[in-house]
Amino acid sequence: MSSLTIIGEKINGTRRHVARAIEQREAAVIRDLAVRQAEAGAAWLDVNAGTRSSAEPDDLVWLIETIQPVVEIPLSLDSANPLAVAAGMQVVERAPMINSISGEPQRLEDMLPLVAEHGCSVIALAMDSAGIPETCQGRLEVARRLMAETRSRGVPDDHVYLDPLAMTLATKTEGAQVTLDTIRAIREEFPDAHLSMGLSNISFGLPARSFINRAFLTLALAAGLDSAILDPLDREMMAALAAAELVLGRDHHCLNYTRAYRAGLFARSEVRAARA
Amino acid sequence: MSSLTIIGEKINGTRRHVARAIEQREAAVIRDLAVRQAEAGAAWLDVNAGTRSSAEPDDLVWLIETIQPVVEIPLSLDSANPLAVAAGMQVVERAPMINSISGEPQRLEDMLPLVAEHGCSVIALAMDSAGIPETCQGRLEVARRLMAETRSRGVPDDHVYLDPLAMTLATKTEGAQVTLDTIRAIREEFPDAHLSMGLSNISFGLPARSFINRAFLTLALAAGLDSAILDPLDREMMAALAAAELVLGRDHHCLNYTRAYRAGLFARSEVRAARA
Repeated sequence: MSSLTIIGEKINGTRRHVARAIEQREAAVIRDLAVRQAEAGAAWLDVNAGTRSSAEPDDLVWLIETIQPVVEIPLSLDSANPLAVAAGMQVVERAPMINSISGEPQRLEDMLPLVAEHGCSVIALAMDSAGIPETCQGRLEVARRLMAETRSRGVPDDHVYLDPLAMTLATKTEGAQVTLDTIRAIREEFPDAHLSMGLSNISFGLPARSFINRAFLTLALAAGLDSAILDPLDREMMAALAAAELVLGRDHHCLNYTRAYRAGLFARSEVRAARA
Repeated sequence: MSSLTIIGEKINGTRRHVARAIEQREAAVIRDLAVRQAEAGAAWLDVNAGTRSSAEPDDLVWLIETIQPVVEIPLSLDSANPLAVAAGMQVVERAPMINSISGEPQRLEDMLPLVAEHGCSVIALAMDSAGIPETCQGRLEVARRLMAETRSRGVPDDHVYLDPLAMTLATKTEGAQVTLDTIRAIREEFPDAHLSMGLSNISFGLPARSFINRAFLTLALAAGLDSAILDPLDREMMAALAAAELVLGRDHHCLNYTRAYRAGLFARSEVRAARA
Protein backbone atom coordinates (compact mmCIF):
# COMPACT_ATOMS: atom_id res chain seq x y z
CA MET A 1 0.00 0.00 0.00
CA SER A 2 2.48 2.58 1.22
CA SER A 3 5.95 2.85 -0.32
CA LEU A 4 7.24 2.85 3.28
CA THR A 5 7.92 -0.62 4.67
CA ILE A 6 6.15 -0.60 8.02
CA ILE A 7 7.38 -2.74 10.89
CA GLY A 8 4.46 -2.92 13.33
CA GLU A 9 5.63 -2.14 16.87
CA LYS A 10 2.71 -3.12 19.07
CA ILE A 11 3.66 -6.67 20.12
CA ASN A 12 6.21 -5.52 22.64
CA GLY A 13 6.58 -7.05 26.11
CA THR A 14 7.80 -3.78 27.58
CA ARG A 15 4.19 -2.57 27.22
CA ARG A 16 2.22 -3.58 30.30
CA HIS A 17 -0.82 -5.25 28.74
CA VAL A 18 1.36 -7.17 26.27
CA ALA A 19 3.60 -8.34 29.13
CA ARG A 20 0.53 -9.62 30.95
CA ALA A 21 -0.74 -11.39 27.84
CA ILE A 22 2.63 -13.10 27.45
CA GLU A 23 2.83 -14.16 31.09
CA GLN A 24 -0.71 -15.51 31.08
CA ARG A 25 -0.47 -16.98 27.57
CA GLU A 26 -3.48 -15.01 26.34
CA ALA A 27 -3.20 -15.89 22.67
CA ALA A 28 -6.28 -13.88 21.65
CA VAL A 29 -4.74 -10.58 22.80
CA ILE A 30 -1.56 -11.18 20.81
CA ARG A 31 -3.38 -12.44 17.72
CA ASP A 32 -5.65 -9.41 17.72
CA LEU A 33 -2.62 -7.10 17.69
CA ALA A 34 -1.04 -9.17 14.92
CA VAL A 35 -4.07 -9.24 12.63
CA ARG A 36 -4.97 -5.58 13.11
CA GLN A 37 -1.43 -4.40 12.36
CA ALA A 38 -1.23 -6.59 9.25
CA GLU A 39 -4.59 -5.29 8.02
CA ALA A 40 -3.47 -1.70 8.62
CA GLY A 41 -0.50 -2.15 6.30
CA ALA A 42 2.41 -3.57 8.33
CA ALA A 43 4.88 -5.53 6.16
CA TRP A 44 6.65 -7.00 9.21
CA LEU A 45 5.58 -7.55 12.81
CA ASP A 46 8.12 -6.73 15.48
CA VAL A 47 7.98 -9.32 18.28
CA ASN A 48 9.55 -8.43 21.61
CA ALA A 49 9.05 -10.86 24.49
CA GLY A 50 9.96 -8.30 27.10
CA THR A 51 12.21 -8.19 30.06
CA ARG A 52 11.79 -11.51 31.91
CA SER A 53 15.21 -12.57 30.68
CA SER A 54 15.34 -16.19 31.85
CA ALA A 55 11.91 -16.81 30.33
CA GLU A 56 12.66 -14.90 27.11
CA PRO A 57 13.46 -17.88 24.84
CA ASP A 58 10.23 -19.68 25.81
CA ASP A 59 8.19 -16.49 25.63
CA LEU A 60 9.52 -15.60 22.18
CA VAL A 61 8.82 -19.10 20.88
CA TRP A 62 5.27 -18.92 22.26
CA LEU A 63 4.74 -15.51 20.62
CA ILE A 64 5.97 -16.74 17.25
CA GLU A 65 3.84 -19.87 17.37
CA THR A 66 0.84 -17.82 18.45
CA ILE A 67 1.18 -15.22 15.71
CA GLN A 68 2.19 -17.30 12.68
CA PRO A 69 -1.13 -19.09 12.13
CA VAL A 70 -3.08 -15.82 11.81
CA VAL A 71 -0.93 -13.59 9.57
CA GLU A 72 1.08 -14.10 6.39
CA ILE A 73 3.69 -11.39 6.94
CA PRO A 74 7.14 -12.19 8.40
CA LEU A 75 8.30 -11.38 11.91
CA SER A 76 11.05 -9.20 13.31
CA LEU A 77 12.65 -10.93 16.31
CA ASP A 78 13.39 -8.06 18.68
CA SER A 79 15.85 -9.28 21.28
CA ALA A 80 19.38 -8.71 22.52
CA ASN A 81 19.48 -12.32 23.76
CA PRO A 82 21.14 -14.70 21.26
CA LEU A 83 19.61 -17.72 23.00
CA ALA A 84 16.12 -16.31 22.52
CA VAL A 85 16.78 -15.48 18.88
CA ALA A 86 18.29 -18.93 18.23
CA ALA A 87 15.25 -20.59 19.87
CA GLY A 88 12.90 -18.43 17.82
CA MET A 89 14.76 -19.33 14.66
CA GLN A 90 13.80 -22.98 15.17
CA VAL A 91 10.08 -22.22 14.88
CA VAL A 92 9.74 -19.33 12.43
CA GLU A 93 8.19 -20.34 9.11
CA ARG A 94 9.28 -17.35 7.01
CA ALA A 95 12.82 -15.87 7.08
CA PRO A 96 12.58 -13.26 9.83
CA MET A 97 14.27 -9.96 10.50
CA ILE A 98 16.61 -9.77 13.48
CA ASN A 99 16.28 -6.58 15.53
CA SER A 100 19.15 -5.77 15.97
CA ILE A 101 22.88 -5.68 15.48
CA SER A 102 25.16 -2.67 16.03
CA GLY A 103 28.86 -1.92 15.89
CA GLU A 104 29.29 -3.54 19.33
CA PRO A 105 31.58 -6.56 18.70
CA GLN A 106 29.77 -8.93 21.08
CA ARG A 107 26.40 -8.19 19.50
CA LEU A 108 27.82 -8.71 16.01
CA GLU A 109 29.43 -11.97 17.04
CA ASP A 110 26.22 -13.20 18.66
CA MET A 111 23.76 -12.27 15.96
CA LEU A 112 25.43 -11.99 12.58
CA PRO A 113 26.06 -15.75 12.14
CA LEU A 114 22.33 -16.37 12.73
CA VAL A 115 21.44 -13.71 10.16
CA ALA A 116 23.76 -15.18 7.54
CA GLU A 117 22.89 -18.80 8.19
CA HIS A 118 19.09 -18.37 8.01
CA GLY A 119 18.85 -15.80 5.21
CA CYS A 120 17.44 -13.21 7.62
CA SER A 121 17.04 -9.51 7.22
CA VAL A 122 18.62 -7.44 9.97
CA ILE A 123 18.28 -4.04 11.59
CA ALA A 124 21.75 -2.51 12.02
CA LEU A 125 22.03 0.42 14.43
CA ALA A 126 24.54 3.18 13.62
CA MET A 127 26.14 2.99 17.08
CA ASP A 128 28.90 0.99 18.73
CA SER A 129 30.45 0.31 22.12
CA ALA A 130 31.25 4.01 22.49
CA GLY A 131 27.53 4.84 22.17
CA ILE A 132 25.69 6.86 19.53
CA PRO A 133 28.04 9.15 17.57
CA GLU A 134 27.04 12.81 17.84
CA THR A 135 27.73 13.58 14.18
CA CYS A 136 26.47 12.34 10.84
CA GLN A 137 30.05 11.48 9.88
CA GLY A 138 30.47 9.34 13.00
CA ARG A 139 27.25 7.41 12.32
CA LEU A 140 28.18 6.97 8.66
CA GLU A 141 31.48 5.43 9.72
CA VAL A 142 29.70 2.90 11.94
CA ALA A 143 27.33 2.13 9.05
CA ARG A 144 30.33 1.49 6.79
CA ARG A 145 31.80 -0.97 9.30
CA LEU A 146 28.44 -2.71 9.63
CA MET A 147 28.04 -3.01 5.86
CA ALA A 148 31.58 -4.41 5.60
CA GLU A 149 30.62 -7.04 8.19
CA THR A 150 27.32 -8.04 6.58
CA ARG A 151 28.90 -8.14 3.11
CA SER A 152 31.78 -10.29 4.38
CA ARG A 153 29.19 -12.80 5.65
CA GLY A 154 27.39 -12.82 2.32
CA VAL A 155 24.28 -10.98 3.57
CA PRO A 156 22.82 -9.09 0.57
CA ASP A 157 22.61 -5.30 1.00
CA ASP A 158 18.84 -5.33 0.60
CA HIS A 159 18.52 -7.55 3.69
CA VAL A 160 20.10 -4.81 5.80
CA TYR A 161 17.95 -2.12 7.45
CA LEU A 162 20.37 0.58 8.63
CA ASP A 163 19.00 2.65 11.51
CA PRO A 164 20.43 6.22 11.57
CA LEU A 165 19.08 6.63 15.14
CA ALA A 166 16.88 9.40 16.46
CA MET A 167 17.43 10.99 19.87
CA THR A 168 15.04 13.29 21.64
CA LEU A 169 14.94 16.95 20.62
CA ALA A 170 14.34 17.77 24.29
CA THR A 171 18.08 17.56 25.01
CA LYS A 172 19.52 18.66 21.66
CA THR A 173 17.59 20.78 19.19
CA GLU A 174 19.90 19.98 16.26
CA GLY A 175 19.49 16.23 16.80
CA ALA A 176 16.89 15.65 14.10
CA GLN A 177 19.10 17.34 11.53
CA VAL A 178 21.94 14.92 12.35
CA THR A 179 19.56 12.00 11.80
CA LEU A 180 18.21 13.44 8.52
CA ASP A 181 21.75 14.13 7.27
CA THR A 182 22.72 10.56 8.19
CA ILE A 183 19.77 9.21 6.19
CA ARG A 184 20.87 11.20 3.12
CA ALA A 185 24.52 10.12 3.50
CA ILE A 186 23.68 6.41 3.90
CA ARG A 187 21.15 6.50 1.04
CA GLU A 188 23.85 7.98 -1.21
CA GLU A 189 26.55 5.49 -0.24
CA PHE A 190 24.46 2.30 0.12
CA PRO A 191 21.61 2.65 -2.39
CA ASP A 192 20.53 -1.00 -2.08
CA ALA A 193 20.36 -1.10 1.72
CA HIS A 194 17.17 -0.07 3.51
CA LEU A 195 16.92 2.76 6.01
CA SER A 196 14.67 2.15 8.98
CA MET A 197 14.02 3.90 12.24
CA GLY A 198 11.89 4.01 15.36
CA LEU A 199 10.26 7.43 15.09
CA SER A 200 9.02 8.15 18.54
CA ASN A 201 12.35 8.66 20.32
CA ILE A 202 12.57 12.06 18.65
CA SER A 203 9.85 13.49 20.90
CA PHE A 204 10.67 11.76 24.19
CA GLY A 205 9.96 14.09 27.12
CA LEU A 206 8.11 16.68 25.00
CA PRO A 207 4.38 17.45 24.98
CA ALA A 208 1.97 16.75 22.10
CA ARG A 209 4.44 14.21 20.74
CA SER A 210 2.46 13.08 17.72
CA PHE A 211 2.89 16.42 15.93
CA ILE A 212 6.66 16.10 16.29
CA ASN A 213 6.68 12.45 15.21
CA ARG A 214 4.65 13.25 12.10
CA ALA A 215 6.84 16.20 11.06
CA PHE A 216 9.91 14.02 11.58
CA LEU A 217 8.43 11.18 9.50
CA THR A 218 7.60 13.60 6.67
CA LEU A 219 11.13 15.00 6.56
CA ALA A 220 12.74 11.56 6.96
CA LEU A 221 10.72 10.21 4.01
CA ALA A 222 11.94 13.12 1.89
CA ALA A 223 15.52 12.37 2.99
CA GLY A 224 15.29 8.71 1.94
CA LEU A 225 13.85 6.65 4.81
CA ASP A 226 12.10 3.64 3.29
CA SER A 227 11.09 1.72 6.41
CA ALA A 228 9.96 2.56 9.93
CA ILE A 229 9.04 0.88 13.18
CA LEU A 230 5.74 2.45 14.12
CA ASP A 231 2.18 1.83 15.23
CA PRO A 232 0.13 1.21 12.07
CA LEU A 233 -3.05 1.52 14.16
CA ASP A 234 -2.27 5.20 14.80
CA ARG A 235 -4.65 6.74 12.27
CA GLU A 236 -3.22 10.23 12.49
CA MET A 237 0.26 8.86 11.78
CA MET A 238 -0.92 6.73 8.87
CA ALA A 239 -2.83 9.66 7.38
CA ALA A 240 0.26 11.87 7.75
CA LEU A 241 2.29 9.15 6.03
CA ALA A 242 -0.14 8.88 3.11
CA ALA A 243 -0.20 12.68 2.78
CA ALA A 244 3.61 12.91 2.84
CA GLU A 245 3.94 10.29 0.10
CA LEU A 246 1.35 12.13 -1.96
CA VAL A 247 3.19 15.45 -1.61
CA LEU A 248 6.50 13.71 -2.43
CA GLY A 249 5.03 12.60 -5.76
CA ARG A 250 5.04 8.90 -4.83
CA ASP A 251 1.32 8.26 -5.09
CA HIS A 252 0.29 8.14 -8.74
CA HIS A 253 -3.11 9.73 -9.39
CA CYS A 254 -3.53 10.03 -5.58
CA LEU A 255 -4.87 6.46 -5.61
CA ASN A 256 -3.33 5.31 -2.34
CA TYR A 257 -4.41 8.48 -0.53
CA THR A 258 -8.00 8.47 -1.72
CA ARG A 259 -8.33 4.70 -1.19
CA ALA A 260 -7.01 4.94 2.37
CA TYR A 261 -9.42 7.79 3.03
CA ARG A 262 -12.40 5.89 1.66
CA ALA A 263 -11.43 2.77 3.61
CA GLY A 264 -11.71 4.86 6.79
CA LEU A 265 -8.02 4.52 7.65
CA PHE A 266 -7.70 8.21 8.56
CA ALA A 267 -8.36 9.78 11.90
CA ARG A 268 -12.06 9.90 12.61
CA SER A 269 -12.09 13.59 13.54
CA GLU A 270 -10.53 14.48 10.21
CA VAL A 271 -12.96 12.40 8.21
CA ARG A 272 -15.83 13.99 10.08
CA ALA A 273 -14.49 17.47 9.39
CA ALA A 274 -13.96 16.69 5.70
CA ARG A 275 -17.52 15.41 5.29
CA ALA A 276 -19.10 18.34 7.10
CA MET B 1 7.06 33.61 17.68
CA SER B 2 7.44 31.39 14.64
CA SER B 3 10.32 31.88 12.22
CA LEU B 4 7.68 31.71 9.47
CA THR B 5 6.14 35.07 8.60
CA ILE B 6 2.41 34.41 8.68
CA ILE B 7 0.02 36.41 6.51
CA GLY B 8 -3.43 35.84 8.03
CA GLU B 9 -5.94 34.89 5.33
CA LYS B 10 -9.30 35.13 7.06
CA ILE B 11 -10.43 38.65 6.10
CA ASN B 12 -11.39 37.68 2.59
CA GLY B 13 -14.56 38.88 0.90
CA THR B 14 -14.79 35.71 -1.20
CA ARG B 15 -15.82 33.96 2.06
CA ARG B 16 -19.56 34.29 2.52
CA HIS B 17 -19.77 35.59 6.09
CA VAL B 18 -16.97 38.09 5.46
CA ALA B 19 -18.75 39.30 2.31
CA ARG B 20 -21.90 39.86 4.37
CA ALA B 21 -19.97 41.72 7.08
CA ILE B 22 -18.48 43.99 4.42
CA GLU B 23 -21.81 44.69 2.73
CA GLN B 24 -23.53 45.42 6.02
CA ARG B 25 -20.56 47.26 7.52
CA GLU B 26 -20.42 44.98 10.55
CA ALA B 27 -17.17 46.26 12.01
CA ALA B 28 -17.25 43.90 15.00
CA VAL B 29 -17.05 40.79 12.78
CA ILE B 30 -14.03 42.12 10.92
CA ARG B 31 -12.27 43.39 14.04
CA ASP B 32 -12.73 40.04 15.75
CA LEU B 33 -11.01 38.27 12.83
CA ALA B 34 -8.23 40.86 12.87
CA VAL B 35 -7.51 40.67 16.60
CA ARG B 36 -7.68 36.89 16.82
CA GLN B 37 -5.32 36.39 13.87
CA ALA B 38 -2.84 38.90 15.30
CA GLU B 39 -2.97 37.22 18.71
CA ALA B 40 -2.40 33.80 17.08
CA GLY B 41 0.84 34.99 15.50
CA ALA B 42 0.03 36.66 12.17
CA ALA B 43 2.70 39.22 11.13
CA TRP B 44 0.48 40.63 8.36
CA LEU B 45 -3.27 40.60 7.75
CA ASP B 46 -4.42 39.95 4.22
CA VAL B 47 -7.40 42.16 3.36
CA ASN B 48 -9.54 41.20 0.39
CA ALA B 49 -12.74 43.20 -0.19
CA GLY B 50 -14.24 40.55 -2.43
CA THR B 51 -15.90 40.51 -5.76
CA ARG B 52 -18.30 43.49 -5.86
CA SER B 53 -15.92 45.22 -8.25
CA SER B 54 -17.54 48.66 -8.51
CA ALA B 55 -17.71 48.86 -4.72
CA GLU B 56 -14.22 47.46 -4.15
CA PRO B 57 -12.37 50.77 -3.56
CA ASP B 58 -14.90 51.88 -0.93
CA ASP B 59 -15.07 48.43 0.65
CA LEU B 60 -11.29 48.15 0.90
CA VAL B 61 -11.02 51.61 2.45
CA TRP B 62 -13.73 50.69 4.97
CA LEU B 63 -11.92 47.44 5.84
CA ILE B 64 -8.61 49.20 6.37
CA GLU B 65 -10.15 51.91 8.53
CA THR B 66 -12.03 49.27 10.51
CA ILE B 67 -9.01 47.07 11.16
CA GLN B 68 -6.26 49.61 11.82
CA PRO B 69 -7.49 50.87 15.20
CA VAL B 70 -7.47 47.37 16.75
CA VAL B 71 -4.19 45.80 15.60
CA GLU B 72 -0.60 46.97 15.29
CA ILE B 73 0.48 44.69 12.45
CA PRO B 74 0.53 45.88 8.82
CA LEU B 75 -1.95 44.92 6.13
CA SER B 76 -1.68 43.11 2.84
CA LEU B 77 -3.95 44.73 0.25
CA ASP B 78 -5.26 41.80 -1.75
CA SER B 79 -6.72 43.12 -4.96
CA ALA B 80 -6.22 43.02 -8.71
CA ASN B 81 -7.89 46.44 -8.99
CA PRO B 82 -5.37 49.31 -9.10
CA LEU B 83 -8.09 51.83 -8.21
CA ALA B 84 -8.90 49.91 -5.03
CA VAL B 85 -5.23 49.60 -4.08
CA ALA B 86 -4.62 53.30 -4.78
CA ALA B 87 -7.63 54.24 -2.64
CA GLY B 88 -6.47 51.96 0.15
CA MET B 89 -3.01 53.50 0.00
CA GLN B 90 -4.50 56.85 0.99
CA VAL B 91 -5.70 55.54 4.35
CA VAL B 92 -3.15 52.90 5.44
CA GLU B 93 -1.05 53.98 8.39
CA ARG B 94 1.78 51.46 8.05
CA ALA B 95 3.47 50.60 4.73
CA PRO B 96 1.37 47.70 3.45
CA MET B 97 2.06 44.68 1.31
CA ILE B 98 0.46 44.56 -2.12
CA ASN B 99 -0.98 41.18 -3.08
CA SER B 100 -0.01 40.79 -5.89
CA ILE B 101 2.03 41.40 -9.01
CA SER B 102 3.01 38.80 -11.58
CA GLY B 103 4.84 38.70 -14.89
CA GLU B 104 1.70 39.98 -16.64
CA PRO B 105 2.72 43.39 -18.10
CA GLN B 106 -0.57 45.15 -17.28
CA ARG B 107 -0.49 44.04 -13.67
CA LEU B 108 3.14 45.14 -13.32
CA GLU B 109 2.38 48.50 -14.88
CA ASP B 110 -0.65 49.01 -12.62
CA MET B 111 0.87 47.97 -9.32
CA LEU B 112 4.64 48.33 -9.33
CA PRO B 113 4.65 52.17 -9.32
CA LEU B 114 2.43 52.08 -6.20
CA VAL B 115 4.78 49.59 -4.53
CA ALA B 116 7.84 51.70 -5.29
CA GLU B 117 6.29 55.04 -4.41
CA HIS B 118 4.90 54.00 -1.02
CA GLY B 119 7.72 51.73 0.19
CA CYS B 120 5.42 48.71 0.11
CA SER B 121 6.24 45.04 0.28
CA VAL B 122 4.82 43.00 -2.57
CA ILE B 123 3.81 39.44 -3.36
CA ALA B 124 5.16 38.46 -6.78
CA LEU B 125 3.64 35.40 -8.41
CA ALA B 126 5.89 33.21 -10.57
CA MET B 127 3.47 33.30 -13.52
CA ASP B 128 2.84 35.56 -16.49
CA SER B 129 0.36 36.13 -19.31
CA ALA B 130 1.00 32.58 -20.56
CA GLY B 131 -0.15 31.16 -17.21
CA ILE B 132 1.77 29.18 -14.62
CA PRO B 133 4.88 27.53 -16.05
CA GLU B 134 4.83 23.74 -15.68
CA THR B 135 8.50 23.50 -14.75
CA CYS B 136 10.75 24.83 -12.01
CA GLN B 137 12.97 26.40 -14.68
CA GLY B 138 10.00 28.23 -16.21
CA ARG B 139 8.91 29.65 -12.84
CA LEU B 140 12.49 30.63 -12.00
CA GLU B 141 12.71 32.59 -15.25
CA VAL B 142 9.54 34.52 -14.39
CA ALA B 143 10.97 35.17 -10.91
CA ARG B 144 14.14 36.56 -12.52
CA ARG B 145 12.13 38.95 -14.69
CA LEU B 146 10.10 40.05 -11.66
CA MET B 147 13.24 40.67 -9.58
CA ALA B 148 14.74 42.66 -12.48
CA GLU B 149 11.58 44.81 -12.50
CA THR B 150 11.44 45.40 -8.75
CA ARG B 151 15.17 46.16 -8.61
CA SER B 152 14.90 48.59 -11.50
CA ARG B 153 12.25 50.47 -9.51
CA GLY B 154 14.44 50.56 -6.40
CA VAL B 155 12.32 48.10 -4.40
CA PRO B 156 14.69 46.33 -1.96
CA ASP B 157 14.85 42.53 -2.36
CA ASP B 158 13.60 41.96 1.18
CA HIS B 159 10.34 43.76 0.31
CA VAL B 160 9.61 41.12 -2.31
CA TYR B 161 7.68 37.93 -1.41
CA LEU B 162 8.12 35.57 -4.36
CA ASP B 163 5.32 33.02 -4.65
CA PRO B 164 6.48 29.75 -6.32
CA LEU B 165 2.80 28.73 -6.75
CA ALA B 166 1.16 25.51 -5.67
CA MET B 167 -1.37 23.68 -7.85
CA THR B 168 -3.57 20.84 -6.76
CA LEU B 169 -2.09 17.36 -6.60
CA ALA B 170 -5.46 16.07 -7.79
CA THR B 171 -4.55 16.84 -11.40
CA LYS B 172 -0.77 16.37 -11.32
CA THR B 173 0.95 14.21 -8.73
CA GLU B 174 4.41 15.70 -9.38
CA GLY B 175 3.11 19.23 -8.85
CA ALA B 176 4.33 19.65 -5.29
CA GLN B 177 7.84 18.64 -6.29
CA VAL B 178 7.91 21.39 -8.92
CA THR B 179 6.90 23.90 -6.26
CA LEU B 180 9.48 22.63 -3.75
CA ASP B 181 12.22 22.68 -6.40
CA THR B 182 11.20 26.23 -7.30
CA ILE B 183 11.51 27.28 -3.65
CA ARG B 184 15.04 25.85 -3.47
CA ALA B 185 16.07 27.47 -6.77
CA ILE B 186 14.72 30.91 -5.83
CA ARG B 187 16.20 30.71 -2.31
CA GLU B 188 19.60 29.97 -3.85
CA GLU B 189 19.48 32.74 -6.42
CA PHE B 190 17.73 35.48 -4.41
CA PRO B 191 18.79 34.92 -0.79
CA ASP B 192 17.43 38.30 0.42
CA ALA B 193 13.97 37.95 -1.10
CA HIS B 194 11.20 36.23 0.83
CA LEU B 195 9.35 33.14 -0.36
CA SER B 196 5.66 33.05 0.39
CA MET B 197 2.77 30.87 -0.67
CA GLY B 198 -0.89 30.08 -0.17
CA LEU B 199 -0.77 26.48 1.03
CA SER B 200 -4.26 25.20 0.52
CA ASN B 201 -4.34 25.07 -3.30
CA ILE B 202 -2.18 21.96 -3.10
CA SER B 203 -5.08 19.85 -1.82
CA PHE B 204 -7.96 21.34 -3.83
CA GLY B 205 -10.46 18.63 -4.77
CA LEU B 206 -8.93 16.00 -2.46
CA PRO B 207 -10.36 14.60 0.79
CA ALA B 208 -8.93 15.18 4.28
CA ARG B 209 -7.12 18.23 2.97
CA SER B 210 -5.47 19.33 6.19
CA PHE B 211 -3.11 16.32 6.26
CA ILE B 212 -1.89 17.24 2.78
CA ASN B 213 -1.56 20.93 3.63
CA ARG B 214 0.51 20.13 6.74
CA ALA B 215 2.86 17.72 4.95
CA PHE B 216 3.34 20.32 2.23
CA LEU B 217 4.06 23.08 4.75
CA THR B 218 6.63 20.87 6.50
CA LEU B 219 8.48 20.11 3.26
CA ALA B 220 8.21 23.71 2.03
CA LEU B 221 9.76 25.00 5.28
CA ALA B 222 12.65 22.57 4.83
CA ALA B 223 13.08 23.81 1.23
CA GLY B 224 13.29 27.46 2.30
CA LEU B 225 9.77 28.92 2.50
CA ASP B 226 9.86 31.75 5.05
CA SER B 227 6.33 33.13 4.77
CA ALA B 228 2.87 31.75 4.10
CA ILE B 229 -0.70 32.91 3.64
CA LEU B 230 -2.68 30.71 6.00
CA ASP B 231 -5.27 30.59 8.74
CA PRO B 232 -3.45 31.19 12.04
CA LEU B 233 -6.60 30.13 13.90
CA ASP B 234 -6.21 26.58 12.53
CA ARG B 235 -4.73 24.92 15.61
CA GLU B 236 -3.70 21.72 13.87
CA MET B 237 -1.84 23.72 11.25
CA MET B 238 -0.12 25.94 13.84
CA ALA B 239 0.92 22.89 15.88
CA ALA B 240 2.27 21.21 12.72
CA LEU B 241 4.18 24.41 11.99
CA ALA B 242 5.71 24.56 15.47
CA ALA B 243 6.62 20.86 15.26
CA ALA B 244 8.23 21.28 11.84
CA GLU B 245 10.35 24.19 13.03
CA LEU B 246 11.40 22.16 16.07
CA VAL B 247 12.44 19.18 13.92
CA LEU B 248 14.28 21.53 11.53
CA GLY B 249 16.43 22.74 14.45
CA ARG B 250 14.98 26.25 14.40
CA ASP B 251 13.49 26.26 17.90
CA HIS B 252 16.28 26.59 20.43
CA HIS B 253 15.68 24.55 23.59
CA CYS B 254 12.17 23.77 22.23
CA LEU B 255 11.01 27.04 23.80
CA ASN B 256 8.56 28.07 21.11
CA TYR B 257 7.04 24.61 20.92
CA THR B 258 6.56 24.13 24.64
CA ARG B 259 5.30 27.71 25.11
CA ALA B 260 2.76 27.31 22.32
CA TYR B 261 1.62 24.05 23.86
CA ARG B 262 1.25 25.56 27.33
CA ALA B 263 -0.59 28.56 25.92
CA GLY B 264 -3.19 26.15 24.54
CA LEU B 265 -2.44 27.00 20.91
CA PHE B 266 -2.51 23.33 19.84
CA ALA B 267 -5.49 21.33 18.76
CA ARG B 268 -7.69 20.43 21.69
CA SER B 269 -7.87 16.74 20.85
CA GLU B 270 -4.09 16.51 20.84
CA VAL B 271 -3.72 18.30 24.15
CA ARG B 272 -6.31 16.00 25.66
CA ALA B 273 -4.49 12.93 24.35
CA ALA B 274 -1.15 14.18 25.63
CA ARG B 275 -2.55 14.76 29.13
CA ALA B 276 -4.28 11.40 29.30
